[in-house]
Amino acid sequence: MPKISTRSGNMPSSPIRKLVPFADKAKKEGTKVYHLNIGQPDIETPQVVFDKMNAMDLKVIEYSHSAGFESYREGLSKYYSEYNVNVNKEQILVTTGGSEALYMAMMSCFNPGDEVIIPEPFYANYNGMAIAAGVTVVPVTATIDNNYALPPISEIEKKVTDKTKAIIICNPGNPTGYLYSEEEIKELKKIIVDHDLYLIADEVYREFCYDAKPFSVMNLEGVDNNVVIIDSVSKRYSMCGARIGAFVTKNKELYDVALKFAQARLSPPTFGQIASEAALETPKSYFDEVSAEYVKRRDILVEGLNSIEGVTCPKPNGAFYAMAQLPIDDSDKFCQWILESYSYEGQTVMMAPATGFYSTPGLGKKEVRLAYVLNEADLRKAVEVLRNALGEYQKQMITQADSALA
Amino acid sequence: MPKISTRSGNMPSSPIRKLVPFADKAKKEGTKVYHLNIGQPDIETPQVVFDKMNAMDLKVIEYSHSAGFESYREGLSKYYSEYNVNVNKEQILVTTGGSEALYMAMMSCFNPGDEVIIPEPFYANYNGMAIAAGVTVVPVTATIDNNYALPPISEIEKKVTDKTKAIIICNPGNPTGYLYSEEEIKELKKIIVDHDLYLIADEVYREFCYDAKPFSVMNLEGVDNNVVIIDSVSKRYSMCGARIGAFVTKNKELYDVALKFAQARLSPPTFGQIASEAALETPKSYFDEVSAEYVKRRDILVEGLNSIEGVTCPKPNGAFYAMAQLPIDDSDKFCQWILESYSYEGQTVMMAPATGFYSTPGLGKKEVRLAYVLNEADLRKAVEVLRNALGEYQKQMITQADSALA
Repeated sequence: MPKISTRSGNMPSSPIRKLVPFADKAKKEGTKVYHLNIGQPDIETPQVVFDKMNAMDLKVIEYSHSAGFESYREGLSKYYSEYNVNVNKEQILVTTGGSEALYMAMMSCFNPGDEVIIPEPFYANYNGMAIAAGVTVVPVTATIDNNYALPPISEIEKKVTDKTKAIIICNPGNPTGYLYSEEEIKELKKIIVDHDLYLIADEVYREFCYDAKPFSVMNLEGVDNNVVIIDSVSKRYSMCGARIGAFVTKNKELYDVALKFAQARLSPPTFGQIASEAALETPKSYFDEVSAEYVKRRDILVEGLNSIEGVTCPKPNGAFYAMAQLPIDDSDKFCQWILESYSYEGQTVMMAPATGFYSTPGLGKKEVRLAYVLNEADLRKAVEVLRNALGEYQKQMITQADSALA
Repeated sequence: MPKISTRSGNMPSSPIRKLVPFADKAKKEGTKVYHLNIGQPDIETPQVVFDKMNAMDLKVIEYSHSAGFESYREGLSKYYSEYNVNVNKEQILVTTGGSEALYMAMMSCFNPGDEVIIPEPFYANYNGMAIAAGVTVVPVTATIDNNYALPPISEIEKKVTDKTKAIIICNPGNPTGYLYSEEEIKELKKIIVDHDLYLIADEVYREFCYDAKPFSVMNLEGVDNNVVIIDSVSKRYSMCGARIGAFVTKNKELYDVALKFAQARLSPPTFGQIASEAALETPKSYFDEVSAEYVKRRDILVEGLNSIEGVTCPKPNGAFYAMAQLPIDDSDKFCQWILESYSYEGQTVMMAPATGFYSTPGLGKKEVRLAYVLNEADLRKAVEVLRNALGEYQKQMITQADSALA
């Protein structure tokens, strides 16, 4: 039997999806599972999208341009200008989700063996993408004590070597929900200028900033050739399944090579582009309602979690995730245990162990990521399940410790 | 300005798409361009697809399982069984087009530096995918004199080194239209068994076999762990824009690692999967009509081409491409010239220079690939344009040769 590739062996399992078999088993046994593990919102996709899809009048579902529909790219250009990001259609490459935009960036910017600095905890799939591209992730650790703010610039600069090619950030952040300030982004500018690095910013949660306006890396001056935005419609319009994203850069050489990788996969999905172009007409009221809903959910979750003894949950400013530190020994063990061996009034909770969001081994063992993508009532119940589960788990930990001592 | 990656510099431009600017210019000047360059059929997508899409009644466009809808994989399993390919839903990974299925295979099977043997001429994007994966393509040349049949096994075996990990074939073939016989596929089995290689078969044109039934690599016995099928709905249902394909293998270890790469990009497109699942209900009459149409088109194109002095075009048995040898000096030059400097009664023809389908430098300079995806009347006109263009081009070649001698 031929061998699989070495990089396959290095690919991590998704921390968000790896517990699925345990959740499936719990459901089969009749337990209700609250899914706080995954960023799949229950928010409805805008009606303008369904109106368009239901009225589609095509004869052939054709390939599009490899860079995406010209009309859609023009629409995106207008959309970005509302965020003071001025890019034209020749600087926007429509991709198959934000994931592919990141893949394009990895393939176009990096050689195998290159290093990229990423503040951790970070979106777990960055690891998988880096392994696929043969790139080494160099983490710089953000801490819960400091609300997961950008680590001090001196700490970041210490990580720069002659192999460093880029800094990757997610803003607002998944999994932390932290929104970098204008000052923090400008600090990063100094490093990329001094060391001639790319700054790749995953800004897919742009619409989900609750206490301040987002400052895009494209708002930085004088670094047009260094900056790339990774974008996606998944969260913006609650249509993760459309698989439409964008790779945005003013660096023409970089855009042109990314387009070659785009040609190698022919074109982004046509249906998804039709839906995404229709979604550009989403009324402002939709976003206002969604934002109000997430603020409410965030507050319920964060207050609920902090009311549990031994739990710390900083209040996130953006996205729809919260990281919480729990009084546990091992988040992987705990997240499996709560699905496999625990239920409270016939209910349990699925969370993402934070270990998968850190690159430094051993970190995240006391933290979990919770996505507040459920309605108010379910969130409250999920918090109660977690409160009771933690009590029970700690009892078992103490019993085990006693037996070990006996 | 930070450097782009080395692999970017190695990425080829698509031979199918690189002449687009010249075609656009011709169109702007009022010339009608017959597109024989690209495998984008004018055949209508089955009505069952539009019926489903227009009646979609969803609230949220969600991610799907990373391996694709379970129901769709069950449907695909049934579909394959009609071709005597017996795979279950746990052996099918739904991908974003055949392109991604190939990417999954490349990433899962190969290490950078590994070699893959591919009979040339081959589908140009295999080159781009191989470069992205850091894999070296080792071509074995099929010739027009032999109808582009599988090169002798002894020739293939000569290419095997200790770095060889796989043989990749496209059957029926793009760009040649050649359908490998059961005997040829069984010859390949000997090599993969003797040298413990993967055999990766792109079988996306399965429905387009006009003179014999296709023999899948999955019909081979005793090599379940070696064999992978690359599939796509693009051509089958004339919905290239759906971007839905499949990676199919009975090798469980390989499937499991491919699934990790699938998780890293979250899920295949939801709309495309809905459309593809609906398309499984396409009536047999649709395929009968499409097949009859392509046979007619093939015969018109091939007879037309062979009636031009100096042109040789073997009759293809499958897919909807023909390779033709023309009385020219340089197919890249000619294909650009006919768009840029020639028209016949206000019309011209866009073709794909064959150089992009060969990996061996210098080959394909007298050949072009023509996709017979136009209706009968347009195909006849395109042949007439080509006949006249060749006459004119030869005159210019002679004049240039005379001036060079003078």
